[in-house]
Amino acid sequence: MATSRRSVGNTSAQLEDDDAFVYVFDRRDSDVPEIKIPTGGLFTYVDFKARVREALGIKKSESFVIATTNREEIKDDDSWDIIDKGDTLYILRNIQQELCAPAQQRVSYLPHYDTIVKGGMYEYYASEGQNPLPYAFAELIDNALAATSNNLGARSIEIRLHFDDSNPSKNCVYVIDNGKGMTPRQLNNWAIYRLSKFIRKDKRGKVSVGEEDDDKKQAQSSAYTPLSLNSDISYFGVGGKQAIFFIGNSTRMITKPIESKDVHELTISKEEFQMKEKNQEAIYSGYIRNRKPGDSSHIAAEDEILGKVIEEEKEREHFTVVEIHGINQQHMSYLKLHMKQWTRQLAHIYHYYIHGPRGNIDVEEVNSGRIPSPFKNIDIEVKLFTKGHPHPRVVNLRDVDDDMQTQFLRTAANTFEFKASVEGSGVVEGVLRYHPFLYDRETYPSDANDPRIEPEAFDDHDYAINDRPARGRRPVFECYWNGRLIPYTFVENFDWCAEPKKSRTLPLECYNRISGVLFTNDHFQVSTNKLTFIDLEMRLREKNTVYSHLVNGQEKRTAIDREFLTWIKECHDQSDKQIRFSHFKGVVTRHDL
Amino acid sequence: MATSRRSVGNTSAQLEDDDAFVYVFDRRDSDVPEIKIPTGGLFTYVDFKARVREALGIKKSESFVIATTNREEIKDDDSWDIIDKGDTLYILRNIQQELCAPAQQRVSYLPHYDTIVKGGMYEYYASEGQNPLPYAFAELIDNALAATSNNLGARSIEIRLHFDDSNPSKNCVYVIDNGKGMTPRQLNNWAIYRLSKFIRKDKRGKVSVGEEDDDKKQAQSSAYTPLSLNSDISYFGVGGKQAIFFIGNSTRMITKPIESKDVHELTISKEEFQMKEKNQEAIYSGYIRNRKPGDSSHIAAEDEILGKVIEEEKEREHFTVVEIHGINQQHMSYLKLHMKQWTRQLAHIYHYYIHGPRGNIDVEEVNSGRIPSPFKNIDIEVKLFTKGHPHPRVVNLRDVDDDMQTQFLRTAANTFEFKASVEGSGVVEGVLRYHPFLYDRETYPSDANDPRIEPEAFDDHDYAINDRPARGRRPVFECYWNGRLIPYTFVENFDWCAEPKKSRTLPLECYNRISGVLFTNDHFQVSTNKLTFIDLEMRLREKNTVYSHLVNGQEKRTAIDREFLTWIKECHDQSDKQIRFSHFKGVVTRHDL
Ligand SMILES: Nc1ncnc2c1ncn2[C@@H]1O[C@H](COP(=O)(O)OP(=O)(O)OP(=O)(O)O)[C@@H](O)[C@H]1O
Ligand SMILES: Nc1ncnc2c1ncn2[C@@H]1O[C@H](COP(=O)(O)OP(=O)(O)OP(=O)(O)O)[C@@H](O)[C@H]1O
Ligand SMILES: [Mg+2]
Ligand SMILES: [Mg+2]
Repeated sequence: MATSRRSVGNTSAQLEDDDAFVYVFDRRDSDVPEIKIPTGGLFTYVDFKARVREALGIKKSESFVIATTNREEIKDDDSWDIIDKGDTLYILRNIQQELCAPAQQRVSYLPHYDTIVKGGMYEYYASEGQNPLPYAFAELIDNALAATSNNLGARSIEIRLHFDDSNPSKNCVYVIDNGKGMTPRQLNNWAIYRLSKFIRKDKRGKVSVGEEDDDKKQAQSSAYTPLSLNSDISYFGVGGKQAIFFIGNSTRMITKPIESKDVHELTISKEEFQMKEKNQEAIYSGYIRNRKPGDSSHIAAEDEILGKVIEEEKEREHFTVVEIHGINQQHMSYLKLHMKQWTRQLAHIYHYYIHGPRGNIDVEEVNSGRIPSPFKNIDIEVKLFTKGHPHPRVVNLRDVDDDMQTQFLRTAANTFEFKASVEGSGVVEGVLRYHPFLYDRETYPSDANDPRIEPEAFDDHDYAINDRPARGRRPVFECYWNGRLIPYTFVENFDWCAEPKKSRTLPLECYNRISGVLFTNDHFQVSTNKLTFIDLEMRLREKNTVYSHLVNGQEKRTAIDREFLTWIKECHDQSDKQIRFSHFKGVVTRHDL
Repeated sequence: MATSRRSVGNTSAQLEDDDAFVYVFDRRDSDVPEIKIPTGGLFTYVDFKARVREALGIKKSESFVIATTNREEIKDDDSWDIIDKGDTLYILRNIQQELCAPAQQRVSYLPHYDTIVKGGMYEYYASEGQNPLPYAFAELIDNALAATSNNLGARSIEIRLHFDDSNPSKNCVYVIDNGKGMTPRQLNNWAIYRLSKFIRKDKRGKVSVGEEDDDKKQAQSSAYTPLSLNSDISYFGVGGKQAIFFIGNSTRMITKPIESKDVHELTISKEEFQMKEKNQEAIYSGYIRNRKPGDSSHIAAEDEILGKVIEEEKEREHFTVVEIHGINQQHMSYLKLHMKQWTRQLAHIYHYYIHGPRGNIDVEEVNSGRIPSPFKNIDIEVKLFTKGHPHPRVVNLRDVDDDMQTQFLRTAANTFEFKASVEGSGVVEGVLRYHPFLYDRETYPSDANDPRIEPEAFDDHDYAINDRPARGRRPVFECYWNGRLIPYTFVENFDWCAEPKKSRTLPLECYNRISGVLFTNDHFQVSTNKLTFIDLEMRLREKNTVYSHLVNGQEKRTAIDREFLTWIKECHDQSDKQIRFSHFKGVVTRHDL
């Protein structure tokens, strides 16, 4: 008998050899329940057969066969060798005999560890050529935003990338926040795939000893938050794990909860899983290391980066560090070569968390100098360290001023705020912006980095003097959920703001100069990777959905299509400055400019 | 001490009370390893404290505190009551004391059962108003196609829907195939989330007793199959489970493998999971019921539908039955009211499996009468039973002749075959079709059921006499993977077949009259829900990808853009029949028509 070669899905793998047994159903012509026959100390088939004979009281003269539930006959040492502890066997008159009564066989079907390790692999797919890495980082930023939401002071979120070109296997990523951290139990829960905050058990029955979890309270809070900037972006219990295993193949979570003396540490890695599988250990078991801040006695001295991070623990009251190792080589070069691009994308995703509900308006126009303090104390910084170089490249997302939202805001001549009241789903806030034609070109921003939504030049249209249309064929609306961008969902437009089919009172191009943003809270569903909305567009199109124009936060009673038409006419009249050259008369030099 | 209230993620939940113990770290000022203190038979905090004192040899005069790893002090019966079996505790001088040495705490982080139960929920999202139910059924058809691929005779796949309007909770769905079935071990593997065929263990070491699995062989086979119609559509180890739990909340798998005497049955349901959680039983454990065909002794007599299905077992050599219960009410009414629509969508998804590589060409044009035998013996039938009505509504997918692919095929005046050789990823087969303008309208088929890809009428363009453009803004290509449609991925077009920007030699509209299909094998990746390709478009756009025109299966040497231009000109010249009315001259009655 084998010492359980099957580790996948077999709980019995953890039994000691002495406790070994098999379940045996006597199905020669009886329907008796199974009996448990101990197999400890049995080495040959003959011994086992004798024990079966004894256990079932089968006479020497009677013949019988032993078979697996797949009707493989156990008839010699070789076939006996394939039986695992806990297996179910039949005793039959002959191998072909019908089952005279049912036989129940215990099985175990633990999800394979690829559930965690590959969770992100196929989910963060690139949508038509976009690199999905920023969206994986976004999951970690989501968690950090949620964790820091009750901070009194600064909410610091730091992404550190460490490149070691001479030894790429040492490349690593850290995401560090100064949020509320996790207790050992919360850290344990963190690791449980699909354990969302909605199903987490009220810990420890009635008695609650300090380990208060405010997730639920937060989720239920219904006070109005502009643009749903509620920092409440945890939903499915998969985001962090998926993101980590999309980026690399190994993680170390280090965390210190508020008011705690101790630091708690947990590692999960593909390698560990493989090892446990090989050694037939329980796959989803591990150890949380509880230790004092700054204690790196378990870390190899060569691991200077981690050593330094642990050293920093002493300065932090409470924090969470997500360390990621085993980073995919392609990811690494993308991260290094395209830092500007992906930080720009992150700045776009979190635009309103970084700059507040009014967005990254041009500060010089509004008042002089830099905005004194960040919105809600949020500070997201990316640092790129290269081994051998003393100083990192640093990008604070607040300083990014060429992300798409910033461009939309800064080229807008006028805005039109509205809301949509969706039956059963509360309110969607929306804003439209007008990007005028100025002198010789459209001011509608272009996104050179997203080929998908970049309009082609219609250079064969008769009217086009300019070589680029404004929005082109892009949909009007980008969509934010609980304040963060859901990047793959666009809403084309609404009836009341679409290009009219007949009786135009202003040039068609004007409708192409509009951009828009929608803001929802979690009354609308998103997919687990937070890349798409599930029901937004559908619900917005429902008959009962009511749109109304907002002026200074007040709903206007007038029908929104008329309000919109008035607005867009005004935009065109006041903002578009189109110069049309006709009838050449000669060259004049102007000295007054 | 509680008898383990925590069942989520806690393996110790299955221990008997007598074996109860806690791990205790003496961290007053030592770094000694933990000791295991039995807690069986202890009822009060005082008893426990005495036992700790004894175990650690602490003198009566010395004081100490007991605490959880979250520094909750255990100091009375109430706080003692929150401790679970297997928990880790500290012995400290005082509750605030620093940890003088690390303490490792065992944790277990079994994925929550929502991994299975909600696996499909957010993954089968509706893309802009489409109902994703057909895609869930497709996963079950995928499995049935794979299971029947080595059948010698008919490959029968049957979807049965049973409506009981007087008792909607009895509504159920069956998917039945006459494929190779599953052995107990394979059925066990079926239930293991993410256990794909690529990582399934070679069962039983060296010794292989009949239980041959041909999945791997099949996957490796590299013989050319037209349009990659290889029936090999199993990939991630999640499809069936996700689909089942998207459709309902409970399943019974019944299967009889080839050459087996016995039927094997396994149930998985949300309710069972909840029960096991409540009773602190192992979540991912269950029983396979092995029994003889036709034995329904375990089924309630009222369950006539299941009783009948089990009765049918006797007629089947080998089969798999997927029974789904607890069906979402909305799904049920969609399935009932829109049968034509979703069977049409299924016919589209499996068009080439149903009709063969040439597709559903108009048989009357090709030869007379019905095509004698189905392609590769595949027969997919949907039956809708309503309680009280004697006869079901039946749709054989082969008889659907208004699915999109059929429409594309039948309106095509001409086709252009090509292939794309993608570096490292083998070959993509492609076909373009020309749908001419005939007399007064475009013949390009329209899909009234998919608002997403339906073009708007450009009634304000000057040239448009017809009120509907051909393809409109839809992308050109739909994409099939291993012969089945991946519904949410479209490829816009390729450089060589796109509308030219300059120097047109034929009307622009002609380019709008093209539809296309791409066929790949699994050298290209799809997302786990098989709704989108991951890398297709990216790789098709790579510089090294080479396109060539195929004529009768032979590659033409000429550059494909020139071949294409020649073809589309020909299409226009030969097929478009445009009548232009001009210069009204008066009314004439024609008697010759
Ligand atoms: N940086 C952090 N600080 C504190 N707690 C965290 C942090 N990151 C994760 N957690 C905890 O771990 C849990 C699991 O995180 P994970 O991102 O895997 O799933 P989730 O956030 O619950 O749901 P989603 O799938 O929507 O991301 C979180 O709910 C939170 O309680
Ligand atoms: N109808 C069937 N007949 C025989 N075996 C089946 C059937 N359905 C499922 N199986 C077996 O169960 C396994 C798991 O099925 P499931 O659909 O959950 O995942 P998969 O097909 O392996 O991968 P994917 O996620 O791509 O669907 C299959 O690989 C196959 O071996
Ligand atoms: Mg998260
Ligand atoms: Mg499958």
